[in-house]
Amino acid sequence: MINIRIILKLLGFLLIIEGLFMLLTVPVSLIYNEADGLQIMAAGFITLLTGGISFFFNRNAEKTISKRDGYIIVSLSWILFSAFGSLPFIFTGAIPSYTDAFFETISGFTTTGASILNDIESLSHGILFWRSLTQWLGGMGIIVLSLAVLPLLGIGGMQLFIAEVPGPTPDKLHPRIKETAKRLWYIYIIFTFAETLLLWLGDMNFFDAINHAFTTMATGGYSTKQASVAYWESPYIQYVITFFMILAGTNFTLSYFALHLKFKKVFQNEEFQYYLSFVVVFTLIIAIIMYLTTESGLEYSFRTSIFQVVSIMTTTGYATADYLLWVPVSGMLIVILMFFGGSAGSTGGGVKIVRVVLLFKNSVLELKRLIHPNAVLPVRMNKMSVDPQIITNVLAFVSFYLLILVSSLIILSALGLDLQTSVGAAASCLGNIGPGIGAVGPMENYSNIPVFGKWFLSFLMLVGRLELFTVIVLFSPEFWRK
Amino acid sequence: MINIRIILKLLGFLLIIEGLFMLLTVPVSLIYNEADGLQIMAAGFITLLTGGISFFFNRNAEKTISKRDGYIIVSLSWILFSAFGSLPFIFTGAIPSYTDAFFETISGFTTTGASILNDIESLSHGILFWRSLTQWLGGMGIIVLSLAVLPLLGIGGMQLFIAEVPGPTPDKLHPRIKETAKRLWYIYIIFTFAETLLLWLGDMNFFDAINHAFTTMATGGYSTKQASVAYWESPYIQYVITFFMILAGTNFTLSYFALHLKFKKVFQNEEFQYYLSFVVVFTLIIAIIMYLTTESGLEYSFRTSIFQVVSIMTTTGYATADYLLWVPVSGMLIVILMFFGGSAGSTGGGVKIVRVVLLFKNSVLELKRLIHPNAVLPVRMNKMSVDPQIITNVLAFVSFYLLILVSSLIILSALGLDLQTSVGAAASCLGNIGPGIGAVGPMENYSNIPVFGKWFLSFLMLVGRLELFTVIVLFSPEFWRK
Repeated sequence: MINIRIILKLLGFLLIIEGLFMLLTVPVSLIYNEADGLQIMAAGFITLLTGGISFFFNRNAEKTISKRDGYIIVSLSWILFSAFGSLPFIFTGAIPSYTDAFFETISGFTTTGASILNDIESLSHGILFWRSLTQWLGGMGIIVLSLAVLPLLGIGGMQLFIAEVPGPTPDKLHPRIKETAKRLWYIYIIFTFAETLLLWLGDMNFFDAINHAFTTMATGGYSTKQASVAYWESPYIQYVITFFMILAGTNFTLSYFALHLKFKKVFQNEEFQYYLSFVVVFTLIIAIIMYLTTESGLEYSFRTSIFQVVSIMTTTGYATADYLLWVPVSGMLIVILMFFGGSAGSTGGGVKIVRVVLLFKNSVLELKRLIHPNAVLPVRMNKMSVDPQIITNVLAFVSFYLLILVSSLIILSALGLDLQTSVGAAASCLGNIGPGIGAVGPMENYSNIPVFGKWFLSFLMLVGRLELFTVIVLFSPEFWRK
Repeated sequence: MINIRIILKLLGFLLIIEGLFMLLTVPVSLIYNEADGLQIMAAGFITLLTGGISFFFNRNAEKTISKRDGYIIVSLSWILFSAFGSLPFIFTGAIPSYTDAFFETISGFTTTGASILNDIESLSHGILFWRSLTQWLGGMGIIVLSLAVLPLLGIGGMQLFIAEVPGPTPDKLHPRIKETAKRLWYIYIIFTFAETLLLWLGDMNFFDAINHAFTTMATGGYSTKQASVAYWESPYIQYVITFFMILAGTNFTLSYFALHLKFKKVFQNEEFQYYLSFVVVFTLIIAIIMYLTTESGLEYSFRTSIFQVVSIMTTTGYATADYLLWVPVSGMLIVILMFFGGSAGSTGGGVKIVRVVLLFKNSVLELKRLIHPNAVLPVRMNKMSVDPQIITNVLAFVSFYLLILVSSLIILSALGLDLQTSVGAAASCLGNIGPGIGAVGPMENYSNIPVFGKWFLSFLMLVGRLELFTVIVLFSPEFWRK
């Protein structure tokens, strides 16, 4: 039994919030004396009104949300946010095509950062602000989703990441979500403030600073400049952004512990250890190769390497260099990083580090199991045995990731994209990264993708962002039966 | 306790067989009046003698072979065969570099078909015959390995494929192997004869016919012509080869049933059903696209599509066209087929169809498990429940396939190969196919790969051929402990 009224009520509530944030953009237009503030305001009111109506007429809905309702609400909320969120782009004429506007907006809310814009600097401040805000809101959404909602829905082994909170209560999501959301948004907001301040202290003006803080913390990657962060040559700016990308790619629960000075808990976390190790190892290899094979100095090589490594691995997608021009092995390492993704419970996308590590550990154990067929050898993480159910879940996640990727390659190449571009676009959108390889490299954008391709990639962003199962399950006849 | 004496005895025995086959090549040289028959004979005697000594001094070894001995024997036999098998190429000067000779030989014994030769037609008949024979012997080896040895060693879910033979007796491999080998070689030889005859009846001379029969049945793909099968424009020749490639990519147990007129058992086999479906679907898509987008006629489009589809999917690697010149989606489909591979129990390599199907089925079930968390939903194959242990095995196999592939991409690109060539070479060698994409496409070869790259790819061919675990387990400290 799907509870349509509670679904409509909740979605209405979420649209009200979106409408309010849209209206929050209007003052930006006013400050910069931009006439299109009026159109943004109209979009805001339409969103607010639609949400309000849906909420009002269902305000008395039962409070019980079933798992099934949960799946529907999660998927629909991202789609509705994107549908309404594209209105400011359309009303102001910033992005005239609806396809492009929807693509840009869902790329924002999924914190992907794939853009169809060819001249970002021509946009008004109001529109740029809304564009960055879509990512920031998407990041907020994903923190709650990955740390409070998905574990309760049993998606892709995410149960593993809520070891710190008391047992799940599948049929009453409400109180837990509220509590977790409060805790973690507070950190999200503090970090955003801190980054804004630090960037502002550097070469950036306040507007660029807050926009980049929004899109860094969301691991989104939308920049206010066509050249992305490469626009600022200041090492200080690039290091600040690198640091906050690393934070944004870290499980927010760990940041919560860190802010409460429980550093032991942070550094004992195995996923975090692997995360930092991967950053260090990939950065060093690429930096040393860059230093040895180009005219670049040591500091530049290090900075450019760590920026690109962190940007791709956390699935942010900013660029200060074009990795497609690097020697093959460095480019290959970046492509491989596209599949790692951020930590679970961060705003980063992709497969997620904990899954990559579990996949590897389980494979190694499988060898041991082959040698000792009768031994019981559980996978261990954070010094504890991992429930075999979670391993199964992780393997299923990786299998689906592959199946979706392969199907996407067929579809994208059928639209005429060459092999590299198909791989780049599919991996990048499914992983919520932004830049890919081929014609969608870090110095290019998605404007030349055919219309159907843009809709398909929008779908991929959604699927990737919602940890695959949340969306795919809706396509299963089993889900709708009974 | 590793039983070195039995290992040496068995390897000695296998080398004696290799030496005898090498000597069998000498008459070919005599027939064509080629002086290098003498060098081939020398190579044959050296092999025979080495094998003889090893066998003789260990003739009284205990008969019990442990699982551990099994792994060692299997891996070493392929390496030794390649080391000695490269002697004819070196002694005759056909391939002066030892690296190249070893690469060409292990590419033969693993039935990969990746070649470093730039002018195949310049080789003597004797050498060409030996080159084809390495593949044919490799194919014989793989039939026994996949249908009799590996299931007993518990490798990668291969137990699934011996449902037809009585229960495994882990510590006494000998009788079972002998029995299975006899049965299946008999079919292998019949098919080889039949293909030789049919090709000879067409445009081919007897020498080319027997060579192509050797390398078809092994899904090896070595041709006597630089242009591969494209040299023969005869549709008849191409269809005959296509038909036998399909046979070679089929589980030989099924062919055994077919020859005993038990057709029901053949067509009820689910892997076989999927195998044929994949051939049909991929062929039709590519043929229709080719017909619509080029000047090609219907028959030519069909023939060229089915030939390339079957050649890549069965991991044979012959070419009658360059799929890299096709429209993107057709090229992409061929690249995807590189990961399917032949049926289990065939001479084909790759992931194998049964594993691809199980992976897909398990993923779909995982969705159902998500919706009904308490239901027990086993994967079904051939109308029976599949032991969860086998699913775990299959998932581990696919995980390892990925891990090895990704590591290979890093190593190959570090040698300076571009992204496409790295992907093409790694996928092709690990899958025992032959041609890849980029600089190792179907109309190219591996001569320009750096020396270290050739050794690394040789290793990949071995790992792929021996179903990953057989080789990898030897690198595990666990294996050598106690």
